[in-house]
Amino acid sequence: MNNQQLFEKIKKKGSFLCVGLDTDIKKIPDFLLESNDPIFEFNKAIIDATEPYTVAYKPNLAFYESEGAEGWRSLEKTINYINECYPGTFLIADAKRGDIGNTSSMYARAFFEKMGFDAVTVAPYMGEDSVKPFLAYEGKRVVLLALTSNKGANDFQFVTDSKTGERLFERVLRISQIWGTSDNIMYVIGATKAEELKGIRMIVPDHFLLIPGIGAQGGSLQDVARYGLNDQCGLLVNSSRAIIYISNDKDFAIKAGECASEIRDEMYSILQSNGLMT
Amino acid sequence: MNNQQLFEKIKKKGSFLCVGLDTDIKKIPDFLLESNDPIFEFNKAIIDATEPYTVAYKPNLAFYESEGAEGWRSLEKTINYINECYPGTFLIADAKRGDIGNTSSMYARAFFEKMGFDAVTVAPYMGEDSVKPFLAYEGKRVVLLALTSNKGANDFQFVTDSKTGERLFERVLRISQIWGTSDNIMYVIGATKAEELKGIRMIVPDHFLLIPGIGAQGGSLQDVARYGLNDQCGLLVNSSRAIIYISNDKDFAIKAGECASEIRDEMYSILQSNGLMT
Repeated sequence: MNNQQLFEKIKKKGSFLCVGLDTDIKKIPDFLLESNDPIFEFNKAIIDATEPYTVAYKPNLAFYESEGAEGWRSLEKTINYINECYPGTFLIADAKRGDIGNTSSMYARAFFEKMGFDAVTVAPYMGEDSVKPFLAYEGKRVVLLALTSNKGANDFQFVTDSKTGERLFERVLRISQIWGTSDNIMYVIGATKAEELKGIRMIVPDHFLLIPGIGAQGGSLQDVARYGLNDQCGLLVNSSRAIIYISNDKDFAIKAGECASEIRDEMYSILQSNGLMT
Repeated sequence: MNNQQLFEKIKKKGSFLCVGLDTDIKKIPDFLLESNDPIFEFNKAIIDATEPYTVAYKPNLAFYESEGAEGWRSLEKTINYINECYPGTFLIADAKRGDIGNTSSMYARAFFEKMGFDAVTVAPYMGEDSVKPFLAYEGKRVVLLALTSNKGANDFQFVTDSKTGERLFERVLRISQIWGTSDNIMYVIGATKAEELKGIRMIVPDHFLLIPGIGAQGGSLQDVARYGLNDQCGLLVNSSRAIIYISNDKDFAIKAGECASEIRDEMYSILQSNGLMT
């Protein structure tokens, strides 16, 4: 799915919402625990309720791995379900992988061949050969960590290069661009760092950005849109906990759908007022 | 397992070898493919043959994930097998994880609670709160990426901080030390960067270092030992492909055992000549 196709999808839905399926068995409604596969049942209900307002889903692998092979099975079922029932949905494996070339190839095989993901998040620390194997898959994408939403982002991502004057996340943005194209690389930019988006858009004007940190982590959608939008929208804004755990009762999916719908409405109005719905 | 306990184990075996279980179903001997779980059968045979010469095993998660939930199951069986048959073996999940605190906790749960690993490799890009949840587990360890063995290491790990004059991997070593102790943090230093070990030992004199890159990647054991040993050995040197794929015939495990035995002999003599076997 290239940028133009993603933009068409965004216009069709009037939304650039990505729902994070960070499904923790300790946080889902109790009554689901009676089913054979509570994690999948929870995801299925959340997906059915939120899909009208959503262009992408992003399961974070940690939540599935914490349940071992069973969790991995629940994830496979979730991805198969979306690909069967809602084909064309953009599916991001939030895995933050990255290893030497030989090994990154195996991760690419895992997410793109074994499971039907469209994109995978990758950590940049190990450099070019840790990222390139993911880019070898036609139509798939790398979502490279650049500036993350957490406090620890300050430990290394802001180190200023004595040679170029760039901060590390800026160097990641500049160097990694030449490994692929704006159609097969995206970047993670935390919503809590919205003030940096203006400068980031100078370095990567055309790339889609995946923005986590709205909601529970405190980022603002309006700020992100103000500085981050480009002429193809160029943003996927993720919300996880604020949507999927909005209620712990029987009506959890309905409430999640309502929450996604409200965010969609705000996004629709942002797209509209920026002339992007035409 | 603290450093002293690890050192005792090293002295007992006369070895600081870690065998990398990077088990690719496309590379294992054909005759194993007839069994129910070829990956596990391969691992079991390799483990039985190499265990007398080995203090640690390090499965790289990518190889198991590339087989989906089944691969994850094979990994669980492998870890259970080692913990049952060879208790006290040091088990490293080479997973290169790292995420916001809330999510890293789930990865820690996956590797330390759900599976019986002693340590997990973590990428430092996201900083302190991405690492700390792993350190909350008593007796477990983080193996933090510092200077990796691959070509892409040059892209970001050598960026020189304009404020401190440190290169990024040196900053990672310095800053991360205060997040834990030398008993619960180790560092990955690629064998292909042996010339850097002298400087690295100035920053982290007491920490154990996990050294990949011997063999297929071209690093030298003698160089690593010359610059990396400390008074508790302080090194785990990993070899994966050079051992586990040494033969593709019926005798693959015997050959792998012989190869591990040869490396052990070289390590024994290094430990001996450095006065570390007393």
